Amino acid sequence: MNTFGRIYRLTTFGESHGAAIGGVIDGMPSGIAIDIDEVQRQLDRRRPGQSSIVTARNEKDRIKVLSGLMDGVTTGTSIGFAVMNDDHHSGDYDNMRHTFRPSHADYTYTAKYGMRDHRGGGRSSARETIARVAGGAFAMQVLRKLGINVYAYTSQVGDIELDRDYHKYDMSLIDSNDVRCPDAGKAAEMRSLIERVKKDGDTIGGVITGVITGVPAGLGQPVFGKLHAMLGSAMLGINAVKGFEYGMGFDGVGRRGSEMIDNFMVDADGNVHTATNHSGGIQGGISNGEDIYFRVAFKPVATLLKEVDTISDTGEPAVLKARGRHDPCVLPRAVPIVEAMAAMTILDAWLLNRTTRL
Amino acid sequence: MNTFGRIYRLTTFGESHGAAIGGVIDGMPSGIAIDIDEVQRQLDRRRPGQSSIVTARNEKDRIKVLSGLMDGVTTGTSIGFAVMNDDHHSGDYDNMRHTFRPSHADYTYTAKYGMRDHRGGGRSSARETIARVAGGAFAMQVLRKLGINVYAYTSQVGDIELDRDYHKYDMSLIDSNDVRCPDAGKAAEMRSLIERVKKDGDTIGGVITGVITGVPAGLGQPVFGKLHAMLGSAMLGINAVKGFEYGMGFDGVGRRGSEMIDNFMVDADGNVHTATNHSGGIQGGISNGEDIYFRVAFKPVATLLKEVDTISDTGEPAVLKARGRHDPCVLPRAVPIVEAMAAMTILDAWLLNRTTRL
Amino acid sequence: MNTFGRIYRLTTFGESHGAAIGGVIDGMPSGIAIDIDEVQRQLDRRRPGQSSIVTARNEKDRIKVLSGLMDGVTTGTSIGFAVMNDDHHSGDYDNMRHTFRPSHADYTYTAKYGMRDHRGGGRSSARETIARVAGGAFAMQVLRKLGINVYAYTSQVGDIELDRDYHKYDMSLIDSNDVRCPDAGKAAEMRSLIERVKKDGDTIGGVITGVITGVPAGLGQPVFGKLHAMLGSAMLGINAVKGFEYGMGFDGVGRRGSEMIDNFMVDADGNVHTATNHSGGIQGGISNGEDIYFRVAFKPVATLLKEVDTISDTGEPAVLKARGRHDPCVLPRAVPIVEAMAAMTILDAWLLNRTTRL
Amino acid sequence: MNTFGRIYRLTTFGESHGAAIGGVIDGMPSGIAIDIDEVQRQLDRRRPGQSSIVTARNEKDRIKVLSGLMDGVTTGTSIGFAVMNDDHHSGDYDNMRHTFRPSHADYTYTAKYGMRDHRGGGRSSARETIARVAGGAFAMQVLRKLGINVYAYTSQVGDIELDRDYHKYDMSLIDSNDVRCPDAGKAAEMRSLIERVKKDGDTIGGVITGVITGVPAGLGQPVFGKLHAMLGSAMLGINAVKGFEYGMGFDGVGRRGSEMIDNFMVDADGNVHTATNHSGGIQGGISNGEDIYFRVAFKPVATLLKEVDTISDTGEPAVLKARGRHDPCVLPRAVPIVEAMAAMTILDAWLLNRTTRL
Repeated sequence: MNTFGRIYRLTTFGESHGAAIGGVIDGMPSGIAIDIDEVQRQLDRRRPGQSSIVTARNEKDRIKVLSGLMDGVTTGTSIGFAVMNDDHHSGDYDNMRHTFRPSHADYTYTAKYGMRDHRGGGRSSARETIARVAGGAFAMQVLRKLGINVYAYTSQVGDIELDRDYHKYDMSLIDSNDVRCPDAGKAAEMRSLIERVKKDGDTIGGVITGVITGVPAGLGQPVFGKLHAMLGSAMLGINAVKGFEYGMGFDGVGRRGSEMIDNFMVDADGNVHTATNHSGGIQGGISNGEDIYFRVAFKPVATLLKEVDTISDTGEPAVLKARGRHDPCVLPRAVPIVEAMAAMTILDAWLLNRTTRL
Repeated sequence: MNTFGRIYRLTTFGESHGAAIGGVIDGMPSGIAIDIDEVQRQLDRRRPGQSSIVTARNEKDRIKVLSGLMDGVTTGTSIGFAVMNDDHHSGDYDNMRHTFRPSHADYTYTAKYGMRDHRGGGRSSARETIARVAGGAFAMQVLRKLGINVYAYTSQVGDIELDRDYHKYDMSLIDSNDVRCPDAGKAAEMRSLIERVKKDGDTIGGVITGVITGVPAGLGQPVFGKLHAMLGSAMLGINAVKGFEYGMGFDGVGRRGSEMIDNFMVDADGNVHTATNHSGGIQGGISNGEDIYFRVAFKPVATLLKEVDTISDTGEPAVLKARGRHDPCVLPRAVPIVEAMAAMTILDAWLLNRTTRL
Repeated sequence: MNTFGRIYRLTTFGESHGAAIGGVIDGMPSGIAIDIDEVQRQLDRRRPGQSSIVTARNEKDRIKVLSGLMDGVTTGTSIGFAVMNDDHHSGDYDNMRHTFRPSHADYTYTAKYGMRDHRGGGRSSARETIARVAGGAFAMQVLRKLGINVYAYTSQVGDIELDRDYHKYDMSLIDSNDVRCPDAGKAAEMRSLIERVKKDGDTIGGVITGVITGVPAGLGQPVFGKLHAMLGSAMLGINAVKGFEYGMGFDGVGRRGSEMIDNFMVDADGNVHTATNHSGGIQGGISNGEDIYFRVAFKPVATLLKEVDTISDTGEPAVLKARGRHDPCVLPRAVPIVEAMAAMTILDAWLLNRTTRL
Repeated sequence: MNTFGRIYRLTTFGESHGAAIGGVIDGMPSGIAIDIDEVQRQLDRRRPGQSSIVTARNEKDRIKVLSGLMDGVTTGTSIGFAVMNDDHHSGDYDNMRHTFRPSHADYTYTAKYGMRDHRGGGRSSARETIARVAGGAFAMQVLRKLGINVYAYTSQVGDIELDRDYHKYDMSLIDSNDVRCPDAGKAAEMRSLIERVKKDGDTIGGVITGVITGVPAGLGQPVFGKLHAMLGSAMLGINAVKGFEYGMGFDGVGRRGSEMIDNFMVDADGNVHTATNHSGGIQGGISNGEDIYFRVAFKPVATLLKEVDTISDTGEPAVLKARGRHDPCVLPRAVPIVEAMAAMTILDAWLLNRTTRL
């Protein structure tokens, strides 16, 4: 299933070492002026080779928009786009052709399809997320016109954690360091942990926090289309993600209801607000107008730059050592992916909500 | 959006105090003998009034199957079913007509729809999950023929926690106590915590652990239909759920890749297995044949049996005290709901996987 | 696949001789006052036993709404409804249990599902359309608020045809006779043809013309969601339908482009119109504001009240004579079904069109 | 809505004068060796400039596959493809920027989107069908492995008609002339009619007949996914199509049931067949194993090479004369489009049918 969304729909294609990665955006409202340079900037944030703590591949990842715009404005028709693959080191993967990398998708793809594209992970490569970032970058430009902003930042690497309260951080500082953490001190600690892990040929996981501001009350559909279920599905679909929580999440389960309810109040302008926001901006699956915030758990990725024991596709024991360039920690590059998936989810919900009343 | 699933699809209807709760199952394979008593048993597990720690409402919740079976065997056509509502205490809700209960869906439904059915929470009532349990109970009977079993149990209430390793527990003991916790000692502790909370007119949250055994390798779709994303979306759609994680989940983020990878091995019968299962039975979004396990966070529910400050729908300050019968802790009754959503998700993935190769 | 529509979605269930026929309407806008008596009137128009030229079964077909309304007004949540089956003559079908009726779905259901519900045609029974008529009757009440009206009438029975130009007929006369033909003279001819055919134990086909007025310009989606493709799919899904055309349809293929183009003009109020309407109100798959009109071909139904040669499900030659009560001509009762499917299609397109611009 | 299909899904993009036309195929089974030259041959059949009776544009329309194949074999992941646009004569369309061509999509797109891409019809251009032909060409290669073949041919141009009985024609002769009509004599007549019409700067419509052989019994879904409704929707979505009928279609409505039923028989090999095939290979919406045949009505296209009266987008009277190269009759080039849509529909139904039984 390569389509995401119900009204604003992104359909993607592309393997790591195929000709291109790309997609089709369907359901884009018409009449929106798109800044393609801004879309490219989002892709650049996801791109490897930005710093010494991420992989050194120098992929230029230039987006080419193939349809759906006239004079830079959306026409309402589908937007096709592609990013050509041009920095193949397919040879790096020859030793993986008949060997299953542990905790990768090699075995499961083979079990499902009877075969797999072993070059660079094929479709299971993180390179696939290029199309998501592009789809999200278009969505963000629509959201901005609606007064909605989407932020994500690295809030934990290994055991180095930020405070859970996102209000303590300045979102404009997210890109001020290559960890994409708005706390400069913690960012430096995270960075040196990643360097250490990298030196060991190992990898490390972490948490990305997402925050969405300016969401009007009313988005989300009861029962099977709850806004947080859509967000959760979007996040869990990102490579290496193992968990999702919103509002107080897992931390809230030990509390009592009386500590956790968010009392309503009316502000000076007569708008309904909640005094606290333990709910995370969503109640009964529908946005209540408060900030939406959530946390996404990323495992340490499985490609180690040291020898690992495994088996071949005929079941023989094998030893594998990844060659090539790999991230010791995906969090910094995953930040724009989290933002992209959140942006598409919210825009989709916003558009669908247009059908609620005459 | 009241439809769940892509091939095995459940569409539901019903408000707490309307005429009935029910649904339509589409995509049920033909030729399956259905044990309706077993479906009813699942509904009975969800039903209020089973013990002193859950609400005392005595809803009989008898399912009536309206179509799709002939002589007790599925015909492949859609299965309509309904459970009549017959124990209304609508008067209990009169004081909520113009008042928003904090952290409930009252305000968000009104913001979205311009109105709401205030009686018993209307469509946002947990009573809506009757249709899910029924849909899941049908799915389980198909899964059992495929050798797949779905279990869920209360693994945490407040700060009383079971060990994370589900292997330590005997799934056959889940229903041996009214907390639905397979550890009798911990169950007793949980029970007394719930009693204490209840006495305070308060509520408490917790965690339900799910385990699915016998899933063949190959289920799940790359990119936007990953098996754990579908599971996560299914779980997050359950009332009061605030988080989902699978495999090592949030706990794994602090580890190194070298500790977390699951090495492949071949067992005596020549089958591929992993030596450990940190992945939780899913790699690259596709099942690998190991057990799938996951955790679902439930907040303490928001209906307190004591006075809470809130506002009316005209913005005036108001004080609300819930009347009627409410759960101090939803976990015990949510166990069959988690099982039902998991069963439908797995069956849906199993059926969709039939289309992968000729 | 028992779900119709993308935003306004009807999911149905029910066999001819099961407990009930019913459905779930999802995506109904909130705040619409529904006249249930009017819904029942549409069902009564579809009901058998209305006159001597349709089957004599006296089914009361009372709709029971199970959810989604409060004080008669839609709440935006799903509307469940059911019509109980209470006039079973299942014994009439015993001779069909192991015999395939020619040109019925008996053989194809068995080939697909490995079995079938033989009683009254099971799910392939025209009785299934009860749920469609109900779904359409709700949709019509929304459309009427939007100034959109849907009409259908019997325009051909056997070789007795009305003029193709629907402007010649008064839509208010459709129900003035039991053929549902707005031309009294032709209706009388059709009626006597149907009587003749009935006396022979035979059946006869015909054409129903549909007309939709008041549709604003802009409904329909380019490429795979063209408004006429949606309408066509809706009509072709009705039992016994073998063809669909709109605008000039098949008759237009022999003409030249210069005869067939509809020139634009501006009316006194400054509104764009076309001087002619050969296009049938849709251009490029999108409504242009003119009347939409179309024709639907119904075959003579296959249940004859005389002996027919066939085979048993073991391949033995067999002779079958239908017992019970059957329509010699389904057109009169199909009129409300055509209207219902058209209404749901247009409302669905109207709602989806809300997502086109911000 | 730019996605077609439920399991085998094609999502398309591209305007006539944008950078490219292309699409993404999702749900392609894995392990199928694809002959790309054969895909290209189908595109060549659709391409303009093949003969004097179709437009003289020399578009090379070379397909580039961007993903989803490894060593020429499908991997089960999505197949992205694109055809670059390289023969723009955008200047030919300058006079249409502010003028609505009669019976084109110019006005309706503007009404829907508030704007349109006027160059070459933008998304409403027949050039969009390139992506359909490619999607269908992939599907055909799967169908061929299943023993299913799809044919289409020009059976009527203006008033020159072939016999309705497709058995009288040799499908291998379809491409023996540039009209794509298997009857050489009729083809010559059609050709000279088209030449005459072209000389007048006019256009002419016609009918394409489709035939699908080798379809096993059991494809299609009851109620809203009937096989002929899916086929009809697929055909009605092709540019310029105004009608669809299958089996006896509109011609059958005047007959009696006793003439129209298809009696079952068992052939020498013990297989069930019908003695006649008035049903067109589908009963109750499900294939019965006989040939499927249908007819598709194409209007004379609206672009005339002579002056037509119309209005500007500000409502002023205008005179328009199309420049550039346009088809006097689209039937010959539409033949591969009909085949493509039929192939995708049947493959989609075949795959979905895999989920019917365990």
